[in-house]
Amino acid sequence: MKRATLDTDTHNFALERFIERPWVRSLIIWLIIINAIVLGVLTYRETLPLNLVIALESLDQAITYLFVVEIFLKLLVYRFQFFRSGWNWFDFIVIGISLVPGSTPFGVLRALRVLRVLRLLHVVPMMRRITEALMKALPGMGAIFAVLALITYVAAVMATNMYGNTENEEVTELFGDLPRSAYSLFQVMTMDGWRFEVVQKVIDDGNPFAWLFFLIFIFIASFAILNLFIALIVDSLAAEQQAIIEEGLDELEEELEGEMVSAEKERAAVLNAIQEMRKEVAALRAIVESRS
Amino acid sequence: MKRATLDTDTHNFALERFIERPWVRSLIIWLIIINAIVLGVLTYRETLPLNLVIALESLDQAITYLFVVEIFLKLLVYRFQFFRSGWNWFDFIVIGISLVPGSTPFGVLRALRVLRVLRLLHVVPMMRRITEALMKALPGMGAIFAVLALITYVAAVMATNMYGNTENEEVTELFGDLPRSAYSLFQVMTMDGWRFEVVQKVIDDGNPFAWLFFLIFIFIASFAILNLFIALIVDSLAAEQQAIIEEGLDELEEELEGEMVSAEKERAAVLNAIQEMRKEVAALRAIVESRS
Amino acid sequence: MKRATLDTDTHNFALERFIERPWVRSLIIWLIIINAIVLGVLTYRETLPLNLVIALESLDQAITYLFVVEIFLKLLVYRFQFFRSGWNWFDFIVIGISLVPGSTPFGVLRALRVLRVLRLLHVVPMMRRITEALMKALPGMGAIFAVLALITYVAAVMATNMYGNTENEEVTELFGDLPRSAYSLFQVMTMDGWRFEVVQKVIDDGNPFAWLFFLIFIFIASFAILNLFIALIVDSLAAEQQAIIEEGLDELEEELEGEMVSAEKERAAVLNAIQEMRKEVAALRAIVESRS
Amino acid sequence: MKRATLDTDTHNFALERFIERPWVRSLIIWLIIINAIVLGVLTYRETLPLNLVIALESLDQAITYLFVVEIFLKLLVYRFQFFRSGWNWFDFIVIGISLVPGSTPFGVLRALRVLRVLRLLHVVPMMRRITEALMKALPGMGAIFAVLALITYVAAVMATNMYGNTENEEVTELFGDLPRSAYSLFQVMTMDGWRFEVVQKVIDDGNPFAWLFFLIFIFIASFAILNLFIALIVDSLAAEQQAIIEEGLDELEEELEGEMVSAEKERAAVLNAIQEMRKEVAALRAIVESRS
Repeated sequence: MKRATLDTDTHNFALERFIERPWVRSLIIWLIIINAIVLGVLTYRETLPLNLVIALESLDQAITYLFVVEIFLKLLVYRFQFFRSGWNWFDFIVIGISLVPGSTPFGVLRALRVLRVLRLLHVVPMMRRITEALMKALPGMGAIFAVLALITYVAAVMATNMYGNTENEEVTELFGDLPRSAYSLFQVMTMDGWRFEVVQKVIDDGNPFAWLFFLIFIFIASFAILNLFIALIVDSLAAEQQAIIEEGLDELEEELEGEMVSAEKERAAVLNAIQEMRKEVAALRAIVESRS
Repeated sequence: MKRATLDTDTHNFALERFIERPWVRSLIIWLIIINAIVLGVLTYRETLPLNLVIALESLDQAITYLFVVEIFLKLLVYRFQFFRSGWNWFDFIVIGISLVPGSTPFGVLRALRVLRVLRLLHVVPMMRRITEALMKALPGMGAIFAVLALITYVAAVMATNMYGNTENEEVTELFGDLPRSAYSLFQVMTMDGWRFEVVQKVIDDGNPFAWLFFLIFIFIASFAILNLFIALIVDSLAAEQQAIIEEGLDELEEELEGEMVSAEKERAAVLNAIQEMRKEVAALRAIVESRS
Repeated sequence: MKRATLDTDTHNFALERFIERPWVRSLIIWLIIINAIVLGVLTYRETLPLNLVIALESLDQAITYLFVVEIFLKLLVYRFQFFRSGWNWFDFIVIGISLVPGSTPFGVLRALRVLRVLRLLHVVPMMRRITEALMKALPGMGAIFAVLALITYVAAVMATNMYGNTENEEVTELFGDLPRSAYSLFQVMTMDGWRFEVVQKVIDDGNPFAWLFFLIFIFIASFAILNLFIALIVDSLAAEQQAIIEEGLDELEEELEGEMVSAEKERAAVLNAIQEMRKEVAALRAIVESRS
Repeated sequence: MKRATLDTDTHNFALERFIERPWVRSLIIWLIIINAIVLGVLTYRETLPLNLVIALESLDQAITYLFVVEIFLKLLVYRFQFFRSGWNWFDFIVIGISLVPGSTPFGVLRALRVLRVLRLLHVVPMMRRITEALMKALPGMGAIFAVLALITYVAAVMATNMYGNTENEEVTELFGDLPRSAYSLFQVMTMDGWRFEVVQKVIDDGNPFAWLFFLIFIFIASFAILNLFIALIVDSLAAEQQAIIEEGLDELEEELEGEMVSAEKERAAVLNAIQEMRKEVAALRAIVESRS
């Protein structure tokens, strides 16, 4: 956790040291893993003996409470700094969801309690590195993603207007309203069954030129996705590259620097020798003149 | 907008300043966004109260007229320079289509009026950067795209000749004439249902070796697409790279330059000192000779 | 055409100059394009008036004979050197196929006469550049392609042994013999309908663990293809990169070289000045000594 | 084979020389290739004459025994060093499997005897290079692969909880238990028939918002795979690049070094000349002083 500078007087150092201890961190990782397995086994709820289900549910409950305690301790230690980290927000929300009682109207949220397991993504250092690298790549995709979304929106409005007004249920299923159209266009974009599951149904519904619309859409969308992809590669590489080149040049420079410093010393020695000699010549002249 | 050098005497500066004002540009962006939403909501025409539909249609109409005014103003300001920008042509055509009355035979073009929303692609600076980057990538793809098109054309002629002459409707649907064949080959190229939706039908129609034809086509097409892709990556990277390397080398050179200038000064000082001494020796000699 | 060094006495220079003339080359390009269109229109043979079909067939025949004349002239000019170019072999074979009479048992080869159009790939300079770039990429793919083929072969033998021995026609269609298995595994590799068109049918035929076999195959094949792809990108880029870096460094070196040459001249001047002074000191000494 | 340093007294040099002889290595390659063909032909067991099948089986058996002898010889030569190489382990296991008699309960393993052919992957040097390059790429994929696996596990638990509890057989087939869910999510990840084969069935089973779950999963998984891919490219390129840059810089440095050494010599000559002159001036002074 990136620890912000804390107002030290209100800060509980003993607790912080405890939370940051390696064995505490390992314990939490193991608790998450055990929790992941428990939640996995609980998907077999129907076929397991009731006793085991109850035991596993209790274990899950217990682990949840331990996580609550962990967050509580962190809140105690870091106070409002706690909420400066996106990962802490993630933990807070994900654990919070687990506490929603199953009987309330929000009980449906309990399906999300398995998201707790995703805490591994930032608790295990190796995974954290990957996840943060993935997230760093996101903003670079923003602009082209917006372009792609705009194109899909426009195409979805056009498709709904052109093909949605029909009695044919197969086609209204695909292009009956705006979200359906966007969803179908996303399917076309993934190239999954685009011809016979989508385009052909529209053509058969009396739109003989629908293939043209979809081909244009496929070309534009593929082209945009391709460039999204290339932009990501180029960005990643350029950063890496800059580091490599700078390092190489710095090394070269350093070595040349060494040579130049020694050259400078040698030139200084030459100049010095000349100055010495000038003194000697001057001395000689003094002798010559003194004799006149 | 890339403003060309204008014949200043006929040029309306006050109007230009007005058009280029930030709030005018923001207004146009917001008008396009509102228009996009209106056109989206209008896809629910059937289920909305008639009053609302009429109101939204009027709003759409009003925004269209505002866009007409915008273009008219730009024409007034930039005159024939207006048509030097591809984006202006795009606006001109897209707004023009919106004005086609729905009752004429060209009424079908009204489905295209939502293309107006794509004006965002060049009006919002962030999106414009992306779109222009995409367009810059196009010419590099031209040649390989032509190769791909030629291969598909040849394969389509062959497929039509070999498989199109049949009573089997499933196969004539796929390879009955040249455009159908090209379309089916495009489907094969996207790898979507290529085996059971296309190749198997042709094999079952009495062409037991059709798989060979399609496999060869898949290999050649995939290979060409792969290289198209690689060419794009390499081009993008090479440009980026050249910049990085040149910058690094320039920096190094600059620093070395500094060293060399100081070395030159030092060498000049050495030469100077020697010249001085030669004068002193000469003076000494003059003294010695004068005494003889 | 890469013109080899020719035994000049037997070589017809007038003819060569004629063949290499720009307008002759343009003529051939246009003949190929017209031929492509004619062959395209001829796919509508059934629906066209008989007269037109006959006219187009004659035109096709005439163009073929012109191509024969072209090859004959080239043979006359370049003699055996003609066959040193792969492209010439391509022309020779493709035109040869066009001359096979339709009535012989080899008449089926006539379907290949449209391959003539592919001559554009090397006659149009822009396309030739692309095609040759594609071909240069081929050998780099050879080794990994062999690995992929070997893996597919082994998997095909295993799949045939494990799943081919069944009464279920759907499965024998997929894995009944070695070529079918290889073909089905290729389908799985393209990820087209792999689950329900292939794997599920095998599972339903009483092989509950078939999914494991296919998942392993998908992982290994995807991984190999991915690396094939990466190897191509890296190779293309490394070449480009080496050029860029070498150029940059050469420039830097040249500039430094200049500096160093001037530094050398300066040092020579210093040494020269010192030698001059030594002579002067020697002269002085001579004077002093001569006076004693 | 990377030969480890051996305890030479117990080491059979004559045997080692024999095993490493080119013709022995070639023989083994050819034996594997013949074996591959034999195993391929044996897939047609049902349609071949019984005599041929028996002959081929015997040939296969004989080749297997030759491989056993080869491994035995290697064990004799390299002793425990033999097991230091992963490839040797591979050979050992793969040949071992071939010896399992078909009548035992482990007879099913005989299907794996064709894996023997994969020995080519390390016996043929060209393929070995590729295979080892592929394996070197594996660890770099480990972390992101773990992230992908974790996300799929969490999504599989959620999907089983949300969609698996149903009477609809089509859906229990897809999401009835944890492995099925993971398998279906893998299918969604490959984008093969994701909409109508998976998502639509879940929606039709009374989960109208299932599309949202699957869209989020597709986005996250595609994004992770994309980054896996990019990481591989960047790693491969960075290594290649570093080599190129270092080589270029080393060359430049070497050449500059030469220049600098000569510059140093020149500066030494200057200093030397000055020292010489100082001696001459000193001598002159001695003369002048001696005369006083």
